[in-house]
Amino acid sequence: MHLPNVKHALIGKPFPSSAQHHERLDKFRALAVFASDPISSNAYATEAIMSILIVLGSAALGLTLPIALGIAALVLLVVFSYTQTILHYPRGGGAYIVAKDNLGTTPSLIAGAALLTDYVLTVAVSVSAGIRAIVSAFPELPLHDYEVEMALAAIVILTWLNLRGVRESGTVFALPTYAFIGGVFLVVVIGLVRYFGLFGAPPMVSPAPVIESAPPVTAFAFVWLVMRAFAAGCTALTGIEAISDGVPAFQAPESKNAATTMVMMAGTAMTLFLGISFLATHLNLVPHPNDSILSQMTRAVTGGGPLYYWVQLFTMLILVLAANTAFQDFPRLSYFLARDGFMPRWMTNLGSRLVYSSGIGVLAVTASLVVIAFHADEIAMLPLYALGVMISFTVSQAGMVRLWGKIARIRPGGELVTPATVLHPETELGWKRLVNGVGAVTTGVVLVVLLVTKFVDGAWIIALALPALVFLFRSIKKHYVGVAQALRTKGITTADLTEIADIVLVPIGDVHRGTLRAIKYAKRMSRHVRAMMVATADTDKDMVLERWRRFPEITDDVDLVFIDYEYRDILTPLVEYIERVHHEEYPNLLTTVVLPEFVPRTAGEHLLHNQTANIIRFRLRAHEDIVVVDVPYHISSLRNKPVAEAPREILEVDLPQPPAPLHNGHAHVSETRANGRRRRK
Amino acid sequence: MHLPNVKHALIGKPFPSSAQHHERLDKFRALAVFASDPISSNAYATEAIMSILIVLGSAALGLTLPIALGIAALVLLVVFSYTQTILHYPRGGGAYIVAKDNLGTTPSLIAGAALLTDYVLTVAVSVSAGIRAIVSAFPELPLHDYEVEMALAAIVILTWLNLRGVRESGTVFALPTYAFIGGVFLVVVIGLVRYFGLFGAPPMVSPAPVIESAPPVTAFAFVWLVMRAFAAGCTALTGIEAISDGVPAFQAPESKNAATTMVMMAGTAMTLFLGISFLATHLNLVPHPNDSILSQMTRAVTGGGPLYYWVQLFTMLILVLAANTAFQDFPRLSYFLARDGFMPRWMTNLGSRLVYSSGIGVLAVTASLVVIAFHADEIAMLPLYALGVMISFTVSQAGMVRLWGKIARIRPGGELVTPATVLHPETELGWKRLVNGVGAVTTGVVLVVLLVTKFVDGAWIIALALPALVFLFRSIKKHYVGVAQALRTKGITTADLTEIADIVLVPIGDVHRGTLRAIKYAKRMSRHVRAMMVATADTDKDMVLERWRRFPEITDDVDLVFIDYEYRDILTPLVEYIERVHHEEYPNLLTTVVLPEFVPRTAGEHLLHNQTANIIRFRLRAHEDIVVVDVPYHISSLRNKPVAEAPREILEVDLPQPPAPLHNGHAHVSETRANGRRRRK
Repeated sequence: MHLPNVKHALIGKPFPSSAQHHERLDKFRALAVFASDPISSNAYATEAIMSILIVLGSAALGLTLPIALGIAALVLLVVFSYTQTILHYPRGGGAYIVAKDNLGTTPSLIAGAALLTDYVLTVAVSVSAGIRAIVSAFPELPLHDYEVEMALAAIVILTWLNLRGVRESGTVFALPTYAFIGGVFLVVVIGLVRYFGLFGAPPMVSPAPVIESAPPVTAFAFVWLVMRAFAAGCTALTGIEAISDGVPAFQAPESKNAATTMVMMAGTAMTLFLGISFLATHLNLVPHPNDSILSQMTRAVTGGGPLYYWVQLFTMLILVLAANTAFQDFPRLSYFLARDGFMPRWMTNLGSRLVYSSGIGVLAVTASLVVIAFHADEIAMLPLYALGVMISFTVSQAGMVRLWGKIARIRPGGELVTPATVLHPETELGWKRLVNGVGAVTTGVVLVVLLVTKFVDGAWIIALALPALVFLFRSIKKHYVGVAQALRTKGITTADLTEIADIVLVPIGDVHRGTLRAIKYAKRMSRHVRAMMVATADTDKDMVLERWRRFPEITDDVDLVFIDYEYRDILTPLVEYIERVHHEEYPNLLTTVVLPEFVPRTAGEHLLHNQTANIIRFRLRAHEDIVVVDVPYHISSLRNKPVAEAPREILEVDLPQPPAPLHNGHAHVSETRANGRRRRK
Repeated sequence: MHLPNVKHALIGKPFPSSAQHHERLDKFRALAVFASDPISSNAYATEAIMSILIVLGSAALGLTLPIALGIAALVLLVVFSYTQTILHYPRGGGAYIVAKDNLGTTPSLIAGAALLTDYVLTVAVSVSAGIRAIVSAFPELPLHDYEVEMALAAIVILTWLNLRGVRESGTVFALPTYAFIGGVFLVVVIGLVRYFGLFGAPPMVSPAPVIESAPPVTAFAFVWLVMRAFAAGCTALTGIEAISDGVPAFQAPESKNAATTMVMMAGTAMTLFLGISFLATHLNLVPHPNDSILSQMTRAVTGGGPLYYWVQLFTMLILVLAANTAFQDFPRLSYFLARDGFMPRWMTNLGSRLVYSSGIGVLAVTASLVVIAFHADEIAMLPLYALGVMISFTVSQAGMVRLWGKIARIRPGGELVTPATVLHPETELGWKRLVNGVGAVTTGVVLVVLLVTKFVDGAWIIALALPALVFLFRSIKKHYVGVAQALRTKGITTADLTEIADIVLVPIGDVHRGTLRAIKYAKRMSRHVRAMMVATADTDKDMVLERWRRFPEITDDVDLVFIDYEYRDILTPLVEYIERVHHEEYPNLLTTVVLPEFVPRTAGEHLLHNQTANIIRFRLRAHEDIVVVDVPYHISSLRNKPVAEAPREILEVDLPQPPAPLHNGHAHVSETRANGRRRRK
């Protein structure tokens, strides 16, 4: 077979199932694995805020830092709230699972759908931003025109690596993540030193602020734009939730290490975010389509030396890693949903390399479509982004509030709900509930702000997609439940299963070795074998009968029915005849059709023969109680038999008459019984 | 079913076979039917000559008329020679049939391939030229940019009409053909009157000849260009041969009427050709890409009034009719070739509307590809054109020479070879042979000139395509002869047909109503039923066994085999197991595999289930002696049975475990027999 070899070459030899293993991460590597997504958003989050504020004129860019501070406060709250989830769900507590446990099916499906869309956007946004880092670094090259192609190529490479089964290997992740953190941190420090003229250095000469006059706006419009800028900056929050799903990947004590890592991660990300936001505004930078703010800032601070290229390179790499985390998260969440019957069941299947290949494929295709639709412009995608993660924050924390309430209600009776309950003295419960409650309300409010401010710019797409996805999930579940009900075996007996009719129908186009072989097979299945042949104007019935009678040993106790038909499509009367026998002669019984099928050797030979057997089988599929038996005949097998006579002269006679192509005429079927019915009874 | 309804709406309801009829044409209508192709070449033949001569400077355009006279002489010779074929083959004597009768297989296949390529080019050239007539008529519209699209649309319309079964209805053809003849004739007459200033009219003021200085050429180059111009003008000969195939369409006496019509047709075509060539050169016209010579001439003569638009309109229509004749000729010739086994046999099948739909489809696709490849520029296609018709002239007349020779040799012995022989007194035979001989030699020489002069410009494509086609024809024939040999029945007995093994294998994924139904069916086929299931790391064998033993009535005398497998692709071990049983346990016997197949109701549901049964069936196709039995289960059928228990709780247990997707790992198959073998013997 060709296909598997190509597959082996591309994605490698299959792994045995036993090869599945779970790498445990220490905090240093765990930070690298999980931080790439939230930390990488520093590549665009500040710029996202500024590109909204610029509408108010460049003077308004000074609002960037206060807004960044607000976002940092929000991150602090979310992280504080999420540590409680992590401690309570040591086996992984993503929003879908927390919601399913505590709020019920619909909220869990909403959270699931929201996260899935966000993972798709993570890939599209991160890859586009990563490509932009490269484009910014080499303004003299005409790379700007190929951003879409480069972004798609990056997705293809990520897909390929993930189908091969690249793991969240902490070591691989560590380098770009820490190189990025270190590089940006150094730039921020040098920038601050130079800006304030510390250590005796002269204060940095930054270009004079370009104060553009913007049309005066009303107070309402001003608040609206500030809210929009805040919403835009909320992309900095994406990826924070991933750690809650990945608790089992930590070394023991898993929950504690995960919580510590989360705090460290948020601290690092926000330090960089505030540093970048401070410098970007105080160096009077202005967003530019082909040169990102981070690139401008680094160039202004470093003067474009090696440190500049270092930052650009690792910006690109950390963004690719961020996209890669979505390649881990999306298939994992799909697996959970598919396992519960809300997504196609094949999404639970591990591929030959022990990864969820289907989930990887679905993610790659959808993310590519987003990249194409938005021309790889990550700033244009941002209005759709961060909504999903905010929904998952809100749902997850609301679920936690419910959970603490449940535990509190049960405690008085002395019952333990979960092993984790023992960890929570009663006084703590109220506090925990308060923290998650404040978190849920805050993220809920932010969610509304995001939805309202971004609605026209693209959030409406998410607002339409999520209910559609939830509906789809429910339909899929309904289908599977229906199938399961239909297949259930409890208490059935042989009698409950459809009985089998004592008839075998054999449609034939001619009398030759292939059809005789099928008739011989049919005779093994039943004493009542009926061969049918469509007789058109061209058919010489006498010749067929003569040939039929030449093999009494095979055909003697078999009926031969001619179906007279005056249209060209001979498959329709055959199918209709079979249907009639099934419904009228043997109603509610399993009726058997034996199809002699010529199997060509090559694709080229396929073109020389009608796919009669395939078409009949396809048309009979609609009938639940018709069994189709394929009796193949290959030219090689038949040819093995000794053939004594000269071939040429019999050509005219024995060449099988190929049936006419498919159409659906009005059949005037009149039957002619060819043989008397002599049966062994 | 959806498809047939769409088909009915598009191409109409099917006709019964009895509806096939043959319209007999009187000479008036026959001329219209057969003349559209040769007469329509007036739309471009003169221009084709001029566009070669222009290389020598516009002064050389004066050579157009002498060249046109040479071509007219050639036409005269060909027509004279062809009348003899028509008189001898009253049932139709196209080049393929004449060559097959008199020269043998290879020459007939060469003629057939040559004509098929020419018919494809007739469609491409005529449609492109027809579109150009419209584009020329409205120079103010930006139609020039859409020539390819318009040409493809015209092909689609022609295809549609022909699939509906439009006949060569003489009446429909008569109008545009005679309107074109009349229009162009009138233009030529008015042109001549005005040019010579007859009837007292002042001689026409034509623009002064633009004498462009061309680089001086050698005598050889001059002769070469004149030969090329002659070759280009030979497109005027296309379509003349069609009448020889269509003799049976004439009213009695068919041959005589056909011959008369052929002479009239050639006379008309050449009159117009010479008239156009005379005026085009004497009015000092120069070829222009967006304005054809015929259009320029008509405008110059008529001043652009209604007669101009009349000519342009009917130029377009007669060209479309010319393309339409190829839609009749190509399928007819394909039918002959397919009937003899040289083309796929389905090309002999009449479609539901009693036309050779496959031939129409093949022609439409290939002509469209030519139009696209040549950007609907018919002048660029002409180097490929007319070669085929010249080959068919040469082969056909050579065949006639052979025929007269045979008849002459037989005559002395007094034997009559064909009924037609009586018509030829001995003295006539030598004369007839001479006429066809001169014809064959002349067209043969012209063929060489065409091939040599047009070779670089595109004739090499035909020179490559024809041998390839002949090779393909022979390969197809070889295949059909092989199949016929393999299928031949002479003297075979039951013992010659492969015996059937007493085993039925049932691959299952789980124990549920669908698989139990298949097992029940399998038990009807044999006492030796063996169910197989692949056991992966996740499979709980005990649970499967527990469920298996719950139905002793069905499963008691059935073996259950677990195939241990540590990779993810569970189809490979199943197929390998089946192959092993077939080859080792039951070698050279027909081995039966029963496949329980879940049939989803809708396309959407298909996405939720694996195509396990289809994939297994596809993989087993390679084995000539494995019979596959599909036992379908539809959710609707299964659901009909009363289900008493609540559905939810059993979901976890009874939901069928979908098998993992396909891959080709290295199987370590170790088997576990589940049941003791208790069989009724």
